[in-house]
Amino acid sequence: MKKRPKILITNDDGIHAPGIRHLWNALKDFADLVVCAPAHEQSAVGLSITIRNPLQMLPINWHNQISVHHDQAHHMGAETWSISGTPADCIKLGLNVIFDQEAPDLVVSGINRGSNAGRNVLYSGTVAGAIEGVMHNIPAIAFSCHDHHEPNYYDFENHIPLIVNHVLENPMPTGTLLNVNFPPKSHSKIQGFRMTRQGKELWVENPDKRNHPAEGSAYYWLGAKVATFDEHEESDISWLQKGYITAVPVHVGELTDHTHLNDHKESFASLKF
Amino acid sequence: MKKRPKILITNDDGIHAPGIRHLWNALKDFADLVVCAPAHEQSAVGLSITIRNPLQMLPINWHNQISVHHDQAHHMGAETWSISGTPADCIKLGLNVIFDQEAPDLVVSGINRGSNAGRNVLYSGTVAGAIEGVMHNIPAIAFSCHDHHEPNYYDFENHIPLIVNHVLENPMPTGTLLNVNFPPKSHSKIQGFRMTRQGKELWVENPDKRNHPAEGSAYYWLGAKVATFDEHEESDISWLQKGYITAVPVHVGELTDHTHLNDHKESFASLKF
Repeated sequence: MKKRPKILITNDDGIHAPGIRHLWNALKDFADLVVCAPAHEQSAVGLSITIRNPLQMLPINWHNQISVHHDQAHHMGAETWSISGTPADCIKLGLNVIFDQEAPDLVVSGINRGSNAGRNVLYSGTVAGAIEGVMHNIPAIAFSCHDHHEPNYYDFENHIPLIVNHVLENPMPTGTLLNVNFPPKSHSKIQGFRMTRQGKELWVENPDKRNHPAEGSAYYWLGAKVATFDEHEESDISWLQKGYITAVPVHVGELTDHTHLNDHKESFASLKF
Repeated sequence: MKKRPKILITNDDGIHAPGIRHLWNALKDFADLVVCAPAHEQSAVGLSITIRNPLQMLPINWHNQISVHHDQAHHMGAETWSISGTPADCIKLGLNVIFDQEAPDLVVSGINRGSNAGRNVLYSGTVAGAIEGVMHNIPAIAFSCHDHHEPNYYDFENHIPLIVNHVLENPMPTGTLLNVNFPPKSHSKIQGFRMTRQGKELWVENPDKRNHPAEGSAYYWLGAKVATFDEHEESDISWLQKGYITAVPVHVGELTDHTHLNDHKESFASLKF
């Protein structure tokens, strides 16, 4: 009989967002779960970590929303923690405080409201939760919805255990995580699963200049718009548009551009000062 | 005669940190410079961007530290701006507000107090400034010091124009930035320049549990320690230890792990629900 896996869950929409509840629900019969998630929304924080402020870590009872006293929580076997930081902070504290004796088998982050397909991965707090797992040599999956509106998370609960199981049975190399996106709910039916290459689509800024109501001085909202590109037919963006669940194996372990290195290391080494 | 390059400068230690002054000083005779840097320290924010708050953008007169009125600044040709956000925010606003007619030739970030060598690149606000340039298809360089103490920035002012010139004469592929680290000042003399592969060294958390002075409840400082590994002799970490300036071409354009994709796309596509 296979050992029941242990999974550490986080997200970036915050511990009270619906997506993480559905992720928990999707996996609760399949694995032992610990949730360490941000107390507040942390969208677009990337791999930010909190080094200039301390972090509160409070056990939460999801069913009645009451936080219990920290020292009681261990006796109660609390498995849901609210942390006053970023997704990467949550994984760091979860691994050190909760899983200090034995690492979990998997880190899972999401389900994010909004797309982390294409080139959005490095901005995403959701993907950062998975990157932090990979930095600790723990396999990791990020789940997001390629949908600007509130997605129908219920639909995804049946698909998530299949994807998690595939990862556990087909281990990823060190430094690689799986970035999963669900298609928009405009597709009446999910067409299937595709492991794909990363697309080019990207949220970019769209600044909006305004004036302070009393002082009149200028300020800016960064704003956002989707930048689209001609996409490879095997990219996540292309398959999402066809109604498929996509999974990109994203490598963050070693980022050297070896071609550029080999072409230019001699001329660089010959610089003289 | 070659056109004088235009360079957009940022950092993560904040606009009043010494490193960015030395970076400006190193390049002022070589290029036209615009500084858009965080009003406050933004270390370890990664590629975080500010989407839930507006951003103030104030022109700063570095010589007397007085900020002038925004609308006067355009008439004065102000080239130094303090922005109430992250390094990525600074590049986004700099490109849209200051360089709205013609993109700069280069984005340069730093000089960071502390190492961004090895695997620290995705946590670093300094490197994020360069990533944001690359996301806009602008060549970018991050400069940092592999030194835990206040580095001797004066030493680096002669080296920086050589590296910038090398990048302008040997363009990097789309999606690749140059991550430069200076060796610790414990080396009495810089030994030379090396373009290298990315090492494995990494700042990791080292949590410190404390108790609130009045309530007694637990809180955590994330803490930090350097995790060291057996390093390839051609890695940045190895060459920094020998006293060389290192430059890693870091690719963030497409992060697909193609080997894993090719090995597993068939079994993933056959998942059934």
